Amino acid sequence: MGPFKLNDIPHINELPAIGEEFRDTKIEKHTSSLKERSEKSSKLLPSIREAIIATGLRDGMTISFHHHFRNGDYVLNMVMDEIAAMGIKNLTLAPSSLLEIHEPLIEHIKNGVIKRIETSGMRGELATAISHGLMEYPVVFRSHGGRAYAIETRRMRIDVAFLGAPSCDPFGNANGYSRENDNGVICGSMGYAKCDAQYANKVVIITDNIVPFPNAPFGIPESDVDFIVEVDKIGDPSGIMSGATRYTKNPKELIIAECAANVIEASGKLTDGFSIQMGTGGASLAVTRFLESKMQQKGIKASFALGGITGSMVSLFEKGLIKKLLDVQSFDLDAARSLINNRFHQQISASYYASPGNPGSAVNQLDIVVLSALEIDTDFNVNVLTGSDGVIRGAIGGHCDTAAGASLTIVVCPLCRGRIPTIVKSVNTITTPGKTVDVIVTEQGVAVNPRRPELEETLRKNGIEVCSSQELQEKAEKMVGIPKPIRYTDKIVGIVTYRDGSVIDVIRQVEEE
Amino acid sequence: MGPFKLNDIPHINELPAIGEEFRDTKIEKHTSSLKERSEKSSKLLPSIREAIIATGLRDGMTISFHHHFRNGDYVLNMVMDEIAAMGIKNLTLAPSSLLEIHEPLIEHIKNGVIKRIETSGMRGELATAISHGLMEYPVVFRSHGGRAYAIETRRMRIDVAFLGAPSCDPFGNANGYSRENDNGVICGSMGYAKCDAQYANKVVIITDNIVPFPNAPFGIPESDVDFIVEVDKIGDPSGIMSGATRYTKNPKELIIAECAANVIEASGKLTDGFSIQMGTGGASLAVTRFLESKMQQKGIKASFALGGITGSMVSLFEKGLIKKLLDVQSFDLDAARSLINNRFHQQISASYYASPGNPGSAVNQLDIVVLSALEIDTDFNVNVLTGSDGVIRGAIGGHCDTAAGASLTIVVCPLCRGRIPTIVKSVNTITTPGKTVDVIVTEQGVAVNPRRPELEETLRKNGIEVCSSQELQEKAEKMVGIPKPIRYTDKIVGIVTYRDGSVIDVIRQVEEE
Repeated sequence: MGPFKLNDIPHINELPAIGEEFRDTKIEKHTSSLKERSEKSSKLLPSIREAIIATGLRDGMTISFHHHFRNGDYVLNMVMDEIAAMGIKNLTLAPSSLLEIHEPLIEHIKNGVIKRIETSGMRGELATAISHGLMEYPVVFRSHGGRAYAIETRRMRIDVAFLGAPSCDPFGNANGYSRENDNGVICGSMGYAKCDAQYANKVVIITDNIVPFPNAPFGIPESDVDFIVEVDKIGDPSGIMSGATRYTKNPKELIIAECAANVIEASGKLTDGFSIQMGTGGASLAVTRFLESKMQQKGIKASFALGGITGSMVSLFEKGLIKKLLDVQSFDLDAARSLINNRFHQQISASYYASPGNPGSAVNQLDIVVLSALEIDTDFNVNVLTGSDGVIRGAIGGHCDTAAGASLTIVVCPLCRGRIPTIVKSVNTITTPGKTVDVIVTEQGVAVNPRRPELEETLRKNGIEVCSSQELQEKAEKMVGIPKPIRYTDKIVGIVTYRDGSVIDVIRQVEEE
Repeated sequence: MGPFKLNDIPHINELPAIGEEFRDTKIEKHTSSLKERSEKSSKLLPSIREAIIATGLRDGMTISFHHHFRNGDYVLNMVMDEIAAMGIKNLTLAPSSLLEIHEPLIEHIKNGVIKRIETSGMRGELATAISHGLMEYPVVFRSHGGRAYAIETRRMRIDVAFLGAPSCDPFGNANGYSRENDNGVICGSMGYAKCDAQYANKVVIITDNIVPFPNAPFGIPESDVDFIVEVDKIGDPSGIMSGATRYTKNPKELIIAECAANVIEASGKLTDGFSIQMGTGGASLAVTRFLESKMQQKGIKASFALGGITGSMVSLFEKGLIKKLLDVQSFDLDAARSLINNRFHQQISASYYASPGNPGSAVNQLDIVVLSALEIDTDFNVNVLTGSDGVIRGAIGGHCDTAAGASLTIVVCPLCRGRIPTIVKSVNTITTPGKTVDVIVTEQGVAVNPRRPELEETLRKNGIEVCSSQELQEKAEKMVGIPKPIRYTDKIVGIVTYRDGSVIDVIRQVEEE
């Protein structure tokens, strides 16, 4: 077209995203092959330290990790040790959750490397130390949906996400398994990490398995990744997941599970195309087995199963009893293998799963959820975070998200565990509000939330014996008595947030014996 | 835990994303089933007009569409007619591309509904009218990668995206095909629409096929979608895609294709694990056939094929000669069906495909790309946008993106088309800079860019006869003479941007005969 001047272009100043005049010199045409380029990818850095430097991490920033490697995770400790060695201080640590293996964080807190923690839960020595007042700032607990919501609304801003991945190509396509070899660590879905990858300012993938480009399908796309570090081992496979979640043989749990399946059937929700999520825990997982025979008898199929996916769900799926699996977290190797091989087994993000900011989120499409509890009170409030001694030993997870979303929310639990009552007058810590829980199923009886009289009527009509939550609590009290009250100091060590970020409860420091 | 006050929480004001105290009254626990909720989903709106109102669209905003329905698209015209009827004016229209079927836009431009256009290309009456000075503001042309880059850097802000989808569930999971029935429209990948869905302020899905939740796998997740409208027909299947792209029988094209395959082999790039993209056009598609036998002979496989995917690529993939297909746009039904059924056939976004902001983008991992051209000049600059009469009749597409990314960029074209030379002294419009093109293959000879002397040497060593681009141009001139120069006015009607948004050329108004 011949020479032109930018100023000749009419309305040039009103045209957005138009830059300066093209300059040939800006183009660097390379001649190397894909293989050569893969070896020299600018995203590949030689060490965690160089990655930390490259991200620009500095005092006071917020960093995140995912917990898909559960108690086999080496990544968080590895990165935190390096950060500490570099002298960076006052960080906010915002992983999707914390487990026993993360005990070394105690030292990093004491040394001022970590100032604050945001997490879904914590266990073990770290949780005990925090319950005894280790930190100046209270830990903020969020549900999986609440965390996604905080991230996507930019109320919680992650400066750097360090995300372990069982496979990654030299340009950043990462996944929770590898199709190139079957020997490495495998965690299945990377659902919780997806939000971090999308929204964090800088994203570092830590892997022990660099595979050829393109690592497709991918859980995290290259376009979300800034740097990649290869390390010897990202985790201990045996701590990450076992072969299959086994069915419980505990007779009490089996009674509860069968009863829960009967309640589901009696509720009228077990119709063709229903949707379901099962929490973890022996009784709640065993419900699947009893539902299976009911589904076979009725000749009906579920449209989808959601959540942490286990081998028991995969088994129903592979028998054609469930059409689709939406997987935010794979709980065992059977689930992970199904994710690899079954195209209707879909990896979903925490936002897709449970964000309260999204009316289409999957939890809102649940007909039925079966959940566990550490404690549940006569007003149906649930505690999944603190033990009977007041010490933190659990995680909110997706408990309150699914309870709110499902139209039938069932909590299964034994009346007592050892000498500890599960049904109490008032839970120690509220993590899931009673308004969102419909039925309690124990081995000693079923209680329906008085807010749902129509449900109680339907259950009774269909042969379920229903008592009140008070009756269950009294039975428990008769069996084990009233436990000594926990003694706390005034200091608040934890804040329990509800899905929208509001404060539903606080956790106080337990008093020394 | 008993009563607490927010003010009791230490450092409460330093904790981000902590809201007010939890209020039970905010929870609305619903009791309806998934089926009942699906019918009443708040995202489902009864008409396009109500969706436009719901998005808050008003004068001066920017709206977008995708062109995966090609010349069978009903969505853009349907929505624009409604917008015009509502009296909204001065919009910027920013679809991923425009085709002949979008001729009705002429009236919307005349009536002031559309003030500006940003697109990859245009054809037919609309393009002719714009070339003759229809618009006051010049049209901004962007490559697929350049558009993704402008969107993700927020330099181009889309207020409302109206995205046609062959299937969508009541909560917004949308895809380019349906697994629930096989009768509807099918377009395969929705790669260009993914960026719009992710970044537009409001997203409306227009579909003629509401399927049960969850529509999984999905091209666009529910979390990116605000509203859904069901209409009678979103497009004409025959205009969207045909059964399979047929191999050319044109002898000239076959000579060019075979020669291009020989050049690829001679370049030394045809080694195990190579990567490739084929442009559209008879000769470039036919290269696949000749490559196939070379790959069989050598016993090598490609690691991936990229881009607009055709049945010919699928055929190699299904024979095991290509390991993975990365699909930003499915060119025919064979490609779309493969996307549905093959798990290593992966749907990718325009950003993943070609954004210059991302060093890991797939075009940067290409060993080989074979491209077509309307014109190419002796300095290897390519024109894919304007015809020999100076009128707009094409699209930049991924041409300059792949040319820059691939380590071997081959342009295949006949020396002349009818009485029109293809090899010229200076192209009418530069869309792809000569620095990024390595080889020209015509039926009359092969020219290598003088910027690549080592490549020329390798080709000669391996038996390819190489001439200069000037020799090719002179041959063309001898055959058809020098065409009469095009006469333009001074008015600039189009701006051609390079990948980064810089202005590489302008298009002027053609003078009336």
